[in-house]
Amino acid sequence: MPRSGEDARRRLQQATLELFHERGYDATTTAEIAARAGVTERTFFRHFPDKREALFDGEEAFRDALTDAVARAPEGLAPMDALLCAFRSVEPMLERNRPFTEPRQAIIARTPALQERVLTKTAKLIGALSAALSRRGFDDGLAALAAQVGMAALGYAAKAWFDDPGPGLDAHLRRAFDTLHHLSPTIRPQDLNVG
Amino acid sequence: MPRSGEDARRRLQQATLELFHERGYDATTTAEIAARAGVTERTFFRHFPDKREALFDGEEAFRDALTDAVARAPEGLAPMDALLCAFRSVEPMLERNRPFTEPRQAIIARTPALQERVLTKTAKLIGALSAALSRRGFDDGLAALAAQVGMAALGYAAKAWFDDPGPGLDAHLRRAFDTLHHLSPTIRPQDLNVG
Repeated sequence: MPRSGEDARRRLQQATLELFHERGYDATTTAEIAARAGVTERTFFRHFPDKREALFDGEEAFRDALTDAVARAPEGLAPMDALLCAFRSVEPMLERNRPFTEPRQAIIARTPALQERVLTKTAKLIGALSAALSRRGFDDGLAALAAQVGMAALGYAAKAWFDDPGPGLDAHLRRAFDTLHHLSPTIRPQDLNVG
Repeated sequence: MPRSGEDARRRLQQATLELFHERGYDATTTAEIAARAGVTERTFFRHFPDKREALFDGEEAFRDALTDAVARAPEGLAPMDALLCAFRSVEPMLERNRPFTEPRQAIIARTPALQERVLTKTAKLIGALSAALSRRGFDDGLAALAAQVGMAALGYAAKAWFDDPGPGLDAHLRRAFDTLHHLSPTIRPQDLNVG
């Protein structure tokens, strides 16, 4: 795509974010987004299939970057270590996208249709990470479990970082992975008094 | 609902499962489900809003049972211990429903529309468990992380139990929670060589 196409794409994403923020998702039309971005509605549809997707651009690139990083992680790492390594490698990308993803978070929080989209997106990402871990030789079930736990930790870190950018994403990510230890059972299941 | 209503409901669920299995989700109509169950289509719609929901009955009861169990778990437990306690308390319910849920799993695996439904269902369950943990005094973020990790472990255990019922669900559940320890980072993040 020529540079002018990339410019239009970025303006369309920014316009989508602004209008969803100002008017809400349901009340915003693709025509309004195109007008705000200074392009035709036809140009909008050259870039995105619908207004929802304009908010989730770059998802595939992010998934590819993560699965590549899992593949490239040092040999012999435990599943969660390989994931942490991969997450750390995409930190520059996440930092760069923060001006877009941080306000997007608030819009998603109040829009059920977007929450559904996030569920699908997260499930796809978990599936891709799980497959990448399987390719490192881990059992499929274990890989799926690790991918879910890892994504939960990444989400926890991202939320903490949105709320408090000060310490930086890396510090929040390390804290999230440390927190996993404190969640884990400290007593044996057989000692639990099940009512 | 009188007993005959409950009987019809169970027959409708069984007919739904059978027809989705035999013909696939898309090719099955509510009229066919009703005919197989020996009731009218109108009776079908008295019980369920659509054919998809006939496969996910009891979801709310399950969620309530789990959140009640989290609330009733012994005081002072770590988040994951409270969850394990709750999961163990619903084992009889899960064992009882296995003749329905185990074949349902294979149908879901080949039906994208049902997978979407499962994502929503799981997200709701995670939200409810997270809220139940918050009510025990845990920080909201921590509660959400624990709920996600716990549900991942429950899913891992259920899958292993569907594949191999021999050891029983409880053994698979304990194994899943033990497995979480082996996933966790064994080296410090600062030692990871990020490329």
